[in-house]
Order: sequence, then C-alpha cells, then structure tokens
Amino acid sequence: MTAVPAPLPPGSTIGILGGGQLGRMLSQAASRLGFDVVILDPEENSPAGRVSRGQIVAAYDDPTALSVFGRVCDVVTFEFENVPAASVELLAEAGALVAPGPTALAVAQDRIDEKTFLNAVGATTVAFAAVDRADDITANLDQVGLPCLLKTRRDGYDGKGQVWIRDAADVPEAWAAIGGRPAILEARAAFTRELSIIAARGRDGSVAVYPLGENHHAGGVLRTTHAPARVDAKTLKRAKAIATAVLEGLAYVGVVGIELFDLGNGKLLVNEIAPRVHNTGHWTQDGCVCDQFEQHIRAVAGWPLGPTTAHARVEMTNLLGDEIEQWSNLAARPDQRLHLYGKSEARPGRKMAHVNRVTSL
Amino acid sequence: MTAVPAPLPPGSTIGILGGGQLGRMLSQAASRLGFDVVILDPEENSPAGRVSRGQIVAAYDDPTALSVFGRVCDVVTFEFENVPAASVELLAEAGALVAPGPTALAVAQDRIDEKTFLNAVGATTVAFAAVDRADDITANLDQVGLPCLLKTRRDGYDGKGQVWIRDAADVPEAWAAIGGRPAILEARAAFTRELSIIAARGRDGSVAVYPLGENHHAGGVLRTTHAPARVDAKTLKRAKAIATAVLEGLAYVGVVGIELFDLGNGKLLVNEIAPRVHNTGHWTQDGCVCDQFEQHIRAVAGWPLGPTTAHARVEMTNLLGDEIEQWSNLAARPDQRLHLYGKSEARPGRKMAHVNRVTSL
Repeated sequence: MTAVPAPLPPGSTIGILGGGQLGRMLSQAASRLGFDVVILDPEENSPAGRVSRGQIVAAYDDPTALSVFGRVCDVVTFEFENVPAASVELLAEAGALVAPGPTALAVAQDRIDEKTFLNAVGATTVAFAAVDRADDITANLDQVGLPCLLKTRRDGYDGKGQVWIRDAADVPEAWAAIGGRPAILEARAAFTRELSIIAARGRDGSVAVYPLGENHHAGGVLRTTHAPARVDAKTLKRAKAIATAVLEGLAYVGVVGIELFDLGNGKLLVNEIAPRVHNTGHWTQDGCVCDQFEQHIRAVAGWPLGPTTAHARVEMTNLLGDEIEQWSNLAARPDQRLHLYGKSEARPGRKMAHVNRVTSL
Repeated sequence: MTAVPAPLPPGSTIGILGGGQLGRMLSQAASRLGFDVVILDPEENSPAGRVSRGQIVAAYDDPTALSVFGRVCDVVTFEFENVPAASVELLAEAGALVAPGPTALAVAQDRIDEKTFLNAVGATTVAFAAVDRADDITANLDQVGLPCLLKTRRDGYDGKGQVWIRDAADVPEAWAAIGGRPAILEARAAFTRELSIIAARGRDGSVAVYPLGENHHAGGVLRTTHAPARVDAKTLKRAKAIATAVLEGLAYVGVVGIELFDLGNGKLLVNEIAPRVHNTGHWTQDGCVCDQFEQHIRAVAGWPLGPTTAHARVEMTNLLGDEIEQWSNLAARPDQRLHLYGKSEARPGRKMAHVNRVTSL
C-alpha cells in the first residue's frame, strides 16, 4: 500500500488536460484555493487558458509537451475522459500525480469494460453484449431484446456514435452507421426519468455525495438539471450506494458523474460514468457551499472534502449555440445566475454558457 | 447629458489597474460573466495577473503602458483609490471607459475634499480642519477637541500616516511623525461600533445596497466582519440613505465601500469612502447570490445590477501573514469557506487570504 501524499499546499501548481468550460471552472475553483493552474490544450487561448497562469498549446499525446507539463505541475487532472493511457504514463514519469488514475480512465473509455466493472460492484446496468462484427449483433438480438442501441465501444458523446436497432433487418445499416467499429449492443431501459449523482472520493478514502439531479436531454444533449431531485428515501439510498461502490471499486480520487435510469420503486440502472466534473453537477455552483469544481480540486490536491448539502433549489439550463444571445435578458433576472464560458464562436449546439435559476428549498 | 453606453457584451475586455487580491477576485467574477481580463501592475505574476488573460507589467503612471492598456480594454476599473488623475486621462484618451470616474477618485484621494463632499450631500462626518502647517493644528484644537487625530491629507491606509494628539504639547511631534505634509485634523468620534455598507450604482443610475457589516479592527487592520449586522430599522434606513447620497452625489458607477461610525440611536457618521470593492464586503461571496465583485463588474460593464439580499449569515476573518499556515485546519471545517490570494511571500501583517464562516440566517 502506498502512503497518502500530504495535502498539496497553496501555491502549488495544478495541471488540467483540456481547456474547455469544465477546465475553466476547475481553474477558477483552484485559484480560489490559492493554487496556480496550467492548462494543456491544442487550441490557443482556450476558455480555461484565459483564466489560468499559463497554457501549453500542444496535442494531448505530444510527448515533449507532456513531459514539460508533468514537470511544472504537482498534480494533473483532466476535463474529459478520452485521455490516452500513454499520456498518463508520461505525466507520471515526469513526476506529476495524476488523478483520477489510469484505472478509472480505462474503465470509462471502454463501454464493455465500464458495464462489466459496474455489474461487478453491484451497480446494475442494462443487458449488453460485445460486438466485434455485424454477426455479433444478430447473434445477441434475442438476449438483448428489441429495440436496442448499438454504440461504438470507445469514443462518442452527446448522442454521437450510436444508433437504434428496431428490427433484425436494421443490422447492416446500423453497423455501417457506426463505421463498423468495435461496439456494444445495449438493451433499452424502461426508465421513468434520468437522474444523475455527483460524488467525490478523497485521497484518504473519504466519500462525499451530492443530492441527486433530474436531467432532461434534447437531441442527445443535456438541456436542464433540477436539483435536489425529488426522490423517495429508497432511491436516494440506492443512488448513494451506487456512487460509493463505484468510487471505492476504482480507488477513485476526484469527482465522478454517474448517470442513472430511474425505473421507479427505488430501482436504478447505471447508464454511464464520467470520471470528471459533469454538466449535471453545474447546479452545485449556486446550490452548495462547496461546488463540484472546488470538490474535485480538493480531492486531487489531497485536501479534506467539502460539504455537499444543498442550501437552495436550482434549475440549471444549458445555453447552446446562439441561445447565448439571450445573455442580456438573463442578466436582468435576479433569480438567474449566469455562467459564461468565454467562447467566441457560437457554433450550433455548442455549449456556450449555463444559467442557474435559484429558489429556496 | 451623455447617452448611457450599451451593456458590454461577453467577450469584451475589462482592464483592472492593480493586481492584488481585490483585482484577482474582480477578475474571477468577470470571467464567470464571459469577459476577458487584462491587469496592469508593476509586479510580475501578480495575484490577479495569474488568473487573467494577460498582464501588462508597468508602473501605474507609465504613459506608453497606459496607452496600450486603454486600447486593448473596453472598460478599465481599479482595485485601489490612489490612481493618478493623469493616468485616468490617458486611459480615456486611448478609448477606454473608466469607472468609477475621475470625480470619485479625486474625492477619495483627498481627505479634506472627501469630508467636504460628504457633508455637502448630508452624510455627516466628525468635525475636521485642514492643516498646512503646524500652527494650523494648534489653531484648530479648540474647534476639533482633544484627543484628535492628525492624518496626512492624501495617501495612507490601514492606520499608516496618522497619529493621535492627546495634548497641545504633542503637536510638534505629531506634525513631524506624519512628515510635515498637508494634513487633516479629525475629531474623535464617540462611536459604539464600526459598521460598513457596500453599495453599487449602475450606468443607468440604479442603486443596489447590501446589508450592513459590523467590523472589528486590530492594529489599524480589519480582522473580522459580521454580516448582516444586527441593526435597528432607523440605522439601516440611515445607512441606505447615506449610500444612496454618496453614489448619486458622485454620479458613481461601480461598487463603493463606506465605513461608518455607529453612534447609537440611528446616528451614523461616515469615516471614509473607498471607491472600489472593499475588504468589509468579502462576506458577500458566501452570503449573497451576486457578490460585490460580480456586482462591480456588472456596474462597470453597464449590465443590470444583481440582487443584494443575504441568504446566509457570514463571519469573515482576514488571515494575515503567517496565519495563512492555518489553511489545512480551516480547509477541514465544513462551515468555513476559504479564499486564498495566491501570494507566495507571507510578510507580517500582509493580507494572504480570508475565510467566511457561513451559518443560516
């Protein structure tokens, strides 16, 4: 067993792989705790880079850049899960602690490994089957049932890289649609709503769990989260048990986002886990004293975890693409708190900002 | 009358003169609203520069630097009141809006002008007299009364540049102690406690006032603020009237901090005004949805002002010098929210961080 490193003192440097809005909000939280932040991102003047001590402009697998980054940073974390395993190795060789660690990344990057892990720790998922060729789909239709969802085994987010199969005749087209890549065939969940739980585990093994959020998607992209979600005691207990099992099963350090299907009667299936701060946790910025961003920084820096109770009810809404043009109306609403990401180009569907509508509990 | 400029859109650049902790927290607030921030400060890698898009390293009166700064920034504001008037002129010539404006700065930089202005708008102060030579002190001792306080007319903060006179015989020594500079002789206020009020005025003339804070100093430096302070309705009404009179009297844009002496029975004297965000307003970060930093950015950017009601009771404590070493104990307290300034050198008495202890109202 390795010793728990001492808490990272203020003035230390935290590295963040990825300079988007999650990296930006992580950087802001880290600076409130007195840390310096350096971003690694191939895009110059990234949203996170513009609020940080510095940015290394390089690809996520650039060995020279990673070596420099690992040497200037005391701890490195990331804002997305598709961090190459080789990059994590290079960072560790350069002397940086990396959190969450390689196991969490590996599990989150492969949908078969993810579901296998989840079921092994008692966090039930939909039925699924591994797909390496079109025949594997046909062979598993009976076990998985129709309709079912074909997803690439790796990559893909916000509804990309996935296609529904409603009939055995759809198989060739579906296989072609995902590019004939290694895949997973997933049963459809008969859920009543989508929930998520944001939780954290510290270097000392302590676990902190936020209240549940209820999520609504449109076109595969999150639109709103209501939190704390109205749930019965059994559902809440089950969600907390799932979060704890996931965090402990991965010996995790940091914040995790876990998407859940609520089947009713306290039954929950895990849809997926994100080894990072999560869009469905943005409500914590205006609902909790310690939000998910500060919590993640506390965890990766080896600090004690902060409190997770909600002091307000929050409805978080993403502003996508040109919806950002509503900023001046939203700024005039005293119950709405705006969080803008500093992105100059409002491409269609791009996450530009979110707004938290705050009401009393 | 000049037209009110349109609200500054996200993506615009806000300049801040001064890169200390106030500039840092202003920068963080501006970035949450989607603005880019550039700092001007002679100290490289200043606390604010490290969380901003960029920093110009130059003296506050460097004409070339100010010209560049004024051209890259849409609005320029400052974290301290001793901004040279010539610098403000150069910034305006370079095309930047400057807020608060030159009148507010001039009044706040000169203790005679400040008290004269305050009394003119009905915000009572202690009795005072202008002092240009030692004889002026002696000549005014009767009118001002003993003991009284001799302060330099300009500069000086946190108890520096001031000396008490308890007897006519103290005059020569007191005059020498402040360097024989133009001064103000102030009567002692028979106050029961020190209060302060943080308020803002927008470009549209709207005024927003936060609840009062009760302040405790040690060695001339602020130690704690309790807010909202327990005050009777008459005192609260009087404080709000003072804040409004000051803001309107200066045609002010931005946040102002006003230090008050509470004489009891709803009677308040104004001690001094600070044309900027104020240490006694740090409690708003964890007590209000829109804190003083976001409020200041909203005002100078021409946005609508945010709400000022408190949702929690806060006790703010400054961490000075090596008190910063308590960080790991404080980080473990779930009711304490830490705000660290990223200063590397913990010189004695230097403001290194503050902690907000949050309890329910």
